[in-house]
Amino acid sequence: MPDPSWSVYLSGEIHSDWRERIQSGAESAGLQVEFLSPVTDHAASDDAGTDILGAEQNAFWHDHKSAKINAIRTRTLIERADLVVVRFGDKYRQWNAAFDAGYAAALGVPLVTLHDPEITHALKEVDGAALAVAETPEQIVRILEYVIEGRL
Amino acid sequence: MPDPSWSVYLSGEIHSDWRERIQSGAESAGLQVEFLSPVTDHAASDDAGTDILGAEQNAFWHDHKSAKINAIRTRTLIERADLVVVRFGDKYRQWNAAFDAGYAAALGVPLVTLHDPEITHALKEVDGAALAVAETPEQIVRILEYVIEGRL
Amino acid sequence: MPDPSWSVYLSGEIHSDWRERIQSGAESAGLQVEFLSPVTDHAASDDAGTDILGAEQNAFWHDHKSAKINAIRTRTLIERADLVVVRFGDKYRQWNAAFDAGYAAALGVPLVTLHDPEITHALKEVDGAALAVAETPEQIVRILEYVIEGRL
Amino acid sequence: MPDPSWSVYLSGEIHSDWRERIQSGAESAGLQVEFLSPVTDHAASDDAGTDILGAEQNAFWHDHKSAKINAIRTRTLIERADLVVVRFGDKYRQWNAAFDAGYAAALGVPLVTLHDPEITHALKEVDGAALAVAETPEQIVRILEYVIEGRL
Amino acid sequence: MPDPSWSVYLSGEIHSDWRERIQSGAESAGLQVEFLSPVTDHAASDDAGTDILGAEQNAFWHDHKSAKINAIRTRTLIERADLVVVRFGDKYRQWNAAFDAGYAAALGVPLVTLHDPEITHALKEVDGAALAVAETPEQIVRILEYVIEGRL
Amino acid sequence: MPDPSWSVYLSGEIHSDWRERIQSGAESAGLQVEFLSPVTDHAASDDAGTDILGAEQNAFWHDHKSAKINAIRTRTLIERADLVVVRFGDKYRQWNAAFDAGYAAALGVPLVTLHDPEITHALKEVDGAALAVAETPEQIVRILEYVIEGRL
Amino acid sequence: MPDPSWSVYLSGEIHSDWRERIQSGAESAGLQVEFLSPVTDHAASDDAGTDILGAEQNAFWHDHKSAKINAIRTRTLIERADLVVVRFGDKYRQWNAAFDAGYAAALGVPLVTLHDPEITHALKEVDGAALAVAETPEQIVRILEYVIEGRL
Amino acid sequence: MPDPSWSVYLSGEIHSDWRERIQSGAESAGLQVEFLSPVTDHAASDDAGTDILGAEQNAFWHDHKSAKINAIRTRTLIERADLVVVRFGDKYRQWNAAFDAGYAAALGVPLVTLHDPEITHALKEVDGAALAVAETPEQIVRILEYVIEGRL
Repeated sequence: MPDPSWSVYLSGEIHSDWRERIQSGAESAGLQVEFLSPVTDHAASDDAGTDILGAEQNAFWHDHKSAKINAIRTRTLIERADLVVVRFGDKYRQWNAAFDAGYAAALGVPLVTLHDPEITHALKEVDGAALAVAETPEQIVRILEYVIEGRL
Repeated sequence: MPDPSWSVYLSGEIHSDWRERIQSGAESAGLQVEFLSPVTDHAASDDAGTDILGAEQNAFWHDHKSAKINAIRTRTLIERADLVVVRFGDKYRQWNAAFDAGYAAALGVPLVTLHDPEITHALKEVDGAALAVAETPEQIVRILEYVIEGRL
Repeated sequence: MPDPSWSVYLSGEIHSDWRERIQSGAESAGLQVEFLSPVTDHAASDDAGTDILGAEQNAFWHDHKSAKINAIRTRTLIERADLVVVRFGDKYRQWNAAFDAGYAAALGVPLVTLHDPEITHALKEVDGAALAVAETPEQIVRILEYVIEGRL
Repeated sequence: MPDPSWSVYLSGEIHSDWRERIQSGAESAGLQVEFLSPVTDHAASDDAGTDILGAEQNAFWHDHKSAKINAIRTRTLIERADLVVVRFGDKYRQWNAAFDAGYAAALGVPLVTLHDPEITHALKEVDGAALAVAETPEQIVRILEYVIEGRL
Repeated sequence: MPDPSWSVYLSGEIHSDWRERIQSGAESAGLQVEFLSPVTDHAASDDAGTDILGAEQNAFWHDHKSAKINAIRTRTLIERADLVVVRFGDKYRQWNAAFDAGYAAALGVPLVTLHDPEITHALKEVDGAALAVAETPEQIVRILEYVIEGRL
Repeated sequence: MPDPSWSVYLSGEIHSDWRERIQSGAESAGLQVEFLSPVTDHAASDDAGTDILGAEQNAFWHDHKSAKINAIRTRTLIERADLVVVRFGDKYRQWNAAFDAGYAAALGVPLVTLHDPEITHALKEVDGAALAVAETPEQIVRILEYVIEGRL
Repeated sequence: MPDPSWSVYLSGEIHSDWRERIQSGAESAGLQVEFLSPVTDHAASDDAGTDILGAEQNAFWHDHKSAKINAIRTRTLIERADLVVVRFGDKYRQWNAAFDAGYAAALGVPLVTLHDPEITHALKEVDGAALAVAETPEQIVRILEYVIEGRL
Repeated sequence: MPDPSWSVYLSGEIHSDWRERIQSGAESAGLQVEFLSPVTDHAASDDAGTDILGAEQNAFWHDHKSAKINAIRTRTLIERADLVVVRFGDKYRQWNAAFDAGYAAALGVPLVTLHDPEITHALKEVDGAALAVAETPEQIVRILEYVIEGRL
């Protein structure tokens, strides 16, 4: 029974190699998955707005211009996704990750979260909207293998 | 007049060969149909959650974890489908089959049911939402051949 | 902080007094809730179609006519509801209850199930889509009191 | 020109009196506003699930049960709102606040954020989706007065 | 159990008293129904466009101007309706009635048709989308009484 | 500037060669158009239901079964279409054509009608919802050539 | 036949008394209409953002802050409206009026334009999306009287 | 990480080479972009309606026929687009450009504007709905390169 390819958006933490581990795991498993993500180069995502459209003296508008250009990418790709995986790391506030989770939930796109158990309580509302709560990228790969190919 | 391929989701009973009969019949008829389905391995669909994400002592949460991972697959594929066929067997409660029928109906995805006439009365609300009520897989194949290719 | 009234649809089993217990409990708690339900007179819901529109010799069409008239009511009221509570009893197949649950889930209307723990496994996919799984009508009243008035 | 009343959802931080200041300000200004909010009693929102539906040994499921019951209230009220105001305080991770912001944005409900300028950079993606970024509850009241009554 | 009022749109044939019979029947039955309809004064609905906005020499544009002003009313009211009843008489082509039926069906508004059995075959596609096919206004009243009040 | 292919649904009259003229015209013009249509074999569309699912004594249900199976095809293809062309001939009531026009209009799919000027007045509400009113299949081909390729 | 009240949004030109003429005309005709509009005080709508949220040195951001606060009002009210009337005057570019017209059209809210015939050609795409094109406020009143009360 | 191709609709001014500069820039950058646009031949877009469907004596209907045929193309392509870029030149009223911007905003399609800073104030409501405001076609190319490929 031929299952078509899936699009999976990988949102959140950008300081570890979790995206690469999911992608290489999916490749090893022979899955037809198109992985989507925000721009994960921190400096680029901070400065895209002013670099392209001109400098701002005010820090708020500097941030604002970049945030909106990033939104062109992130909203378009989240809306294309069959599944959104949101990774929360131990550091930083990562409000954009939680924002993406809420965005996906409201669109009805299935949501999976990925984080250490230490931060479970703070994430309870986000996890409550998720269809799975994983702790490792390898679990994400297994979820993909199961939902796409039916292999456990 | 070139008709493009259709996606057909086959929901429900997993103890007989009705899916295979529909698929081989569609193949014999030369239809361009992509068949989609839930994971039909009963043990796998019962244990996917705990097998991937860790064991649960409480039976409710054991079931819950698997049900939600199954939902990633089933909801995504029902939303992709042009047509949902729901098969009710003579045994078991099969509430997930009726749930899928309601889900498809609310999305406006055309619904066809497949069951023996003995259970017609119990299924009257579900059949009332269906565009066809069939008794055999071969009738499903003929419906597909008619709606896709116009051949009676 | 004034909270407006809620509409709550009570779907499913019609052989016990669970609806009355929820309604009287909500009244005692002083909640502003409009309760909606299908026609719970079994004979009426079986015969509405033929009684109004004329007899049918064929049992299938007898059922079909009634099911569709019932659907005018049930779909309209489920779409109006802020919350759908679905009760599964121990007897009967109750496919219409599971159908309503799927219908509510696909519309994004919050879903709560109400059933004995004995049938948990058979209901795992339905419970997986629910925001709460209760065992007694009194728990439903407490959920309403909490979500509407914030009182625990 | 008669302007009808507005529903405004106040999401986020629960440790200061910002909601009361907005509500009393709106009342002083004579605005027809229905204010909606999550349950702001921290203990209640942590324990609602187990208090009503039974204790859990596992902390994750304790949180999960409460989070989902809270979701019945928060999603229903956000969907009713004409405007969502999200307040971020200086402490805690407040991922549920950012989740609500993403949820409102995806639904197309106008979003206003309320926070100190010190956390602007961390909130840039959320602020990028907002139609106004305020620093004080009094600014929120003035926004309401302007958009509802046209008074500056 | 308090059932709120329903809005029912009465589309189609304008040369008999079927609307009045339904309305007086609903009143006698004590139903809370708001009945909506197109402008049923034939001359007015033909000439509204040119009478208000200026004469047209070309018959096509004369018709076009009126049709569009009628559409302001009909589409708005069909979208408000909980139920659309479409009456087909024995004469005239009544394409606007069938158009309204298709419009309601695509919006997911429950549809009931009302016509003599003589024209059943020609109406089979329209009846196929309806939740009831009635022959008399009195049957429509009984359907309303049943779906609103649960009385058979 | 590469324009992708369009899907065009051809609804309505089945007794003349208008579909073939549009298709051959589009082919001559080198347009990338996928043409979709209902089953245009009159006998097949009348009998599909009973031929596949079993005979009915009652003429109403004979029609009903076929109408619903036809609806699987017609609604699916109208929802896929970028443009719906509805042809009204001089004979027959053609309520299904007007139904399809209303269905397309409610979905927001652009609508074009094709008919002789003699029946303009009876079609004024349908034409009022159309983005073009053509008299010949060749005009439809020119519309396609213009909207797809920009060639006048 | 009781027709409920309508909400009518009056967008566009703010330098003449066209809104007042429509409102007083509707009042004289005894129509139940709730009229909605943007803030029509030019200075207020230019400065709302900076007046409430703080001054900006850069003219672009000065405008931007006000435009977004205006959008809270205008989008909310357009989405509430049953009908949007857009007035184009002879002066100024009035891009916000055309923007509102496009916004209403995409939402499927019926659109009526109001302008002098001299600017018809420049407005042809906007008029092409309108269900009526009026030249005087009195014609708008007559349209309202007709579509709400059926009086010509 | 493979990013799929994007569809970008280029709306607005037709008297300069801005579309060509964006397209050639995107090609040089190796971007997978499908560019869509209205018919940019001014005479063709003015006369398409009458040229295909027959002459009109009245200038209003001449314009109307063409505007509606243009709408078949523009609305279909805007709905297909991942991003809509709207260019405002220094001359002409360009109400159709602002209409397209409002149309895209209401659909939730990301919007970018392109215009000289001289007309910023008049465009403030339109710019307020945009995710970027550019001054040159080369900035648009850089935005595309960033949002599609992540390259700054």
